[in-house]
Amino acid sequence: MKADDLYSRLKKTDEAILKRLREWAERILEAARTEKKVYMDVPVRTFSNVYFDEERRIIQMGDRVARREFLNVGHAKKFLQTSLVAATLKDLITEGITTSLRDVYYRIKHTIPGTTENTVDEQKESDKAIEDLETILGFVREQMHVFSKGGKGRLAGPIQIREIVPDPDGGPPRIVETDGENVGMGGWAIPPIAEPERVEIEKVEAEFVLVIEKDAVWTRFHEDRFWNKHNCIIVTGSGQPDRATRRLVHRLHYEFKLPVYVMTDADPWGWYIYSVYKQGSINLSYLSPALATPDSRFLGLTISDYYDFKFTKEIKLVLKDQDRKRLKEMRRYPWFKHKEWHREFDLMEKEGFKMEIEAGSSKYFRFITKEYTPAKLEAKAFLP
Amino acid sequence: MKADDLYSRLKKTDEAILKRLREWAERILEAARTEKKVYMDVPVRTFSNVYFDEERRIIQMGDRVARREFLNVGHAKKFLQTSLVAATLKDLITEGITTSLRDVYYRIKHTIPGTTENTVDEQKESDKAIEDLETILGFVREQMHVFSKGGKGRLAGPIQIREIVPDPDGGPPRIVETDGENVGMGGWAIPPIAEPERVEIEKVEAEFVLVIEKDAVWTRFHEDRFWNKHNCIIVTGSGQPDRATRRLVHRLHYEFKLPVYVMTDADPWGWYIYSVYKQGSINLSYLSPALATPDSRFLGLTISDYYDFKFTKEIKLVLKDQDRKRLKEMRRYPWFKHKEWHREFDLMEKEGFKMEIEAGSSKYFRFITKEYTPAKLEAKAFLP
Repeated sequence: MKADDLYSRLKKTDEAILKRLREWAERILEAARTEKKVYMDVPVRTFSNVYFDEERRIIQMGDRVARREFLNVGHAKKFLQTSLVAATLKDLITEGITTSLRDVYYRIKHTIPGTTENTVDEQKESDKAIEDLETILGFVREQMHVFSKGGKGRLAGPIQIREIVPDPDGGPPRIVETDGENVGMGGWAIPPIAEPERVEIEKVEAEFVLVIEKDAVWTRFHEDRFWNKHNCIIVTGSGQPDRATRRLVHRLHYEFKLPVYVMTDADPWGWYIYSVYKQGSINLSYLSPALATPDSRFLGLTISDYYDFKFTKEIKLVLKDQDRKRLKEMRRYPWFKHKEWHREFDLMEKEGFKMEIEAGSSKYFRFITKEYTPAKLEAKAFLP
Repeated sequence: MKADDLYSRLKKTDEAILKRLREWAERILEAARTEKKVYMDVPVRTFSNVYFDEERRIIQMGDRVARREFLNVGHAKKFLQTSLVAATLKDLITEGITTSLRDVYYRIKHTIPGTTENTVDEQKESDKAIEDLETILGFVREQMHVFSKGGKGRLAGPIQIREIVPDPDGGPPRIVETDGENVGMGGWAIPPIAEPERVEIEKVEAEFVLVIEKDAVWTRFHEDRFWNKHNCIIVTGSGQPDRATRRLVHRLHYEFKLPVYVMTDADPWGWYIYSVYKQGSINLSYLSPALATPDSRFLGLTISDYYDFKFTKEIKLVLKDQDRKRLKEMRRYPWFKHKEWHREFDLMEKEGFKMEIEAGSSKYFRFITKEYTPAKLEAKAFLP
């Protein structure tokens, strides 16, 4: 896409959001003028309204909504918070700037005149209001110019990326081209917002995406130019991935039909991170269609790997009570129902240990890139 | 520096380290052949051997050493650990690869033959051995090919950076050029190792360095192209900075004579982060000469700012017990002895609140980049 077209796409989304915001606000005003009850319907985002969509294989939000009435004392404050955030989103879009969740919190926090009460007391209140608006308006908050942190994902490999960075002072946007094979040891820093409106994946010559849980391990793959030898894109979310990293993996799969393989520690925490990339998360169930990549496969590590690759016992980490507890919860998740996974759960519980990716270095430092991962890829030894 | 020269510099450092390692090992072997006692002297790195160097204005390590004797049961294991790590460093350099602290731990962990004892049980043991070798050999571990995590710092502005990335398989190194004004919203990802042997700062046209504690706030400065309007380099360490970020700030100051200004939250934690950039840290006192930038000045936030910039009371965060405790400790640090700082400590304690940089958004989102920081820079209203 040409830079100009990219910029118009961003502007078009901005206008679409402003239009939706206006319609929504007018509907409420109209109700206030004509009816007794002013209300907004907000989809329920608690665990009780989350389900696993067997067909799409992602965690989804159910269709229960909660009605918030302006003249109901119990609802009025939330009603106010959502309205304040809506006005703030409008400002952000109009000014052409982005900001963080924390800044939005401070922006709308003030003492309600004539009272000692604050509009919001904690950030989670404004966060919830933003989530409300994501579901009400049908746009993700990144499209509405709000991110969480400064970004923590990294990427390298045969990929061409074009970023468009608008100038809040009205000048021309900066257009930044990145060649993923020509990045330093830090890789390409995945920006806080990775929506198509701002980040265009221009060209991909890779055959698959390898997602690596830990940034230190990713550095091993990057230094060894694994992306070149195996013609792939290597991504890390540095632990629990942020939304931008998940979004980018999702886009690489859907826009370029790339298979996605995920590598984590062999522990409940690591395996859960895999499922977040794959099926989405319970907290952000309504975003799964935009963030999840249900065709992802799990490359490793498994507890079986310990035996298959003849690791020595020193690298075992004793399973703790909290690991066993987490494992028990994970057994009940429908997205982990496959017998292959339950075999791993059983093995971990019975043998009482977990292991980290770095354990490969007990053999030699490049074991993970020279033997383990190539063997797994070659044998297509993936878990569902 | 030409790419070839850069590469020879890296190779020269490698050779110098190998030479030092060999000499050190031979001295120990020689002792084993000729004397009763085989030992190594290791500088003591506990708090008791740390002092504030008033002249250089950095936290330094004293000259006390501990002698480790091979035939002393209480010392033998540490002796062994240091030797194992030394051998591992030699391997890393010879193979031309880098790795993480965690990987080194797994690399040297094994059961001592004929016993049930492991060479190391926890990572902190191998970490300590690496710190020993840093002080014994006089090279930082990054020069010896070991990093901590995958890197978390970010940077943007009028700076040209050249990275050299060797090929572990013996091919030519990759040379990566970065123009700090032409980076995406994630900025340039500061790599895990930012030593001159791998990262050359080719050219700097900025007039100063602005270090911003939080990555989300850094994103505000980056989006607003603050680096262009104020001709500076903006850096974030994403909270407590890693060694590479501190090293780079240090290098920008010493190689290019750039003044360094630091911006953190107005709380004991943020102020301490400032002092880490400025004077070094207690834990890594022996590295202060390479990491600290004692000429750094503190731009903000201060508690006085609350009054000077007429913030409203909603943005105050109540001071907690742990904040008061930390404040008490900081009062005793000689590097915080200036009356300007004690005035802030007093004010914080008396008024009982702290505040975050994001509080600026309570006025308007760009307050921090359009008013606050320019006003501070203009008035040179810095704390020592």
